[in-house]
Amino acid sequence: MARAMPAETKDRIVEAGAELFRRQGYTGTGVKQIVAEANAPFGSLYHFFPGGKEQLAAEVIRFSGGMYAQVVVEAIAPAKDPLHLVELFFGGAARHLRETDYEDACPIATVALEVASTSEPLRQATAEVFEAWIAGLAASLRSVGVAEDKSRELSVAMLLSLEGAFVLSRAGRTTEPLEVAGRAMAQVVGNALAHC
Amino acid sequence: MARAMPAETKDRIVEAGAELFRRQGYTGTGVKQIVAEANAPFGSLYHFFPGGKEQLAAEVIRFSGGMYAQVVVEAIAPAKDPLHLVELFFGGAARHLRETDYEDACPIATVALEVASTSEPLRQATAEVFEAWIAGLAASLRSVGVAEDKSRELSVAMLLSLEGAFVLSRAGRTTEPLEVAGRAMAQVVGNALAHC
Repeated sequence: MARAMPAETKDRIVEAGAELFRRQGYTGTGVKQIVAEANAPFGSLYHFFPGGKEQLAAEVIRFSGGMYAQVVVEAIAPAKDPLHLVELFFGGAARHLRETDYEDACPIATVALEVASTSEPLRQATAEVFEAWIAGLAASLRSVGVAEDKSRELSVAMLLSLEGAFVLSRAGRTTEPLEVAGRAMAQVVGNALAHC
Repeated sequence: MARAMPAETKDRIVEAGAELFRRQGYTGTGVKQIVAEANAPFGSLYHFFPGGKEQLAAEVIRFSGGMYAQVVVEAIAPAKDPLHLVELFFGGAARHLRETDYEDACPIATVALEVASTSEPLRQATAEVFEAWIAGLAASLRSVGVAEDKSRELSVAMLLSLEGAFVLSRAGRTTEPLEVAGRAMAQVVGNALAHC
């Protein structure tokens, strides 16, 4: 059976799962729908993921986390200084949210809230993704001059502001919360620079 | 049939729905489970909510929103000044999250993300609850001396910080994000007072 299941099939299953979990959440997505969207034979799911939906979801969360990290890194790459980075971070998120009709925000937030108290392996997968994003953001902040000892606190503040602004922005179909978050974080980052 | 369905039955259905939606989200909760938890006859659900699960969910979202507003108002009532209010707001949330083993955070955030792009009536219900919370928080900030023209921006910033900190705190099983959010918002509120 292994020879009949090329690695691309696994990739297609993970990619289809990522898209469906982002749109519908974990609970609302069935494995049958995932293999159908992936145009894969049903048996391939349990071939690649003997642990079933939960094992697939853990891989989807890590895959989505890596993809989104790339998007954010690209968005903030042109930053010339810390305040410019804050502007690109929240401005890019607001633009993308408007362009996708308020649908495409954080790829793992819905799943993270769904699984936080119901699946320990999936909770851990979401925690690892958030930690990786915080570490990446901290490195980006340091690369534009933020002090080592301030970079983690500022990264946690920026990420939680982004996540919360996405919740309010999607509910209200307005980018006001992302703009408020950007202005608040500009002050917090500005204060950190002033006290360096 | 109406005479056989006392109003308490409706209240029990809404309360059971609120608890299940908070724990499992909207998609993961079936109407059969709600009436079973409410100890109500199955027919009572469609008697009180002819629109079915979606109509029940809209009422549950508004009910949960009102309950949580009371909890937050009580937590911040002792505030003597704006910075004390920020401390009570995030400190109370962190304590409650630890006491409930990281389960009991925002009662509508999971549902808000689930329905944002899939149910217009439910998206509107979550948006109304968030707006009511922002208005209530702005009134509380004004009552401890924050200027009228700063109160909305600060309330939006505080609420989005709370929502985002809940996502990261529940995923990581740590109150660090709530503490970071509290420190960041203390700076933002402090800046607003300095510029009054």
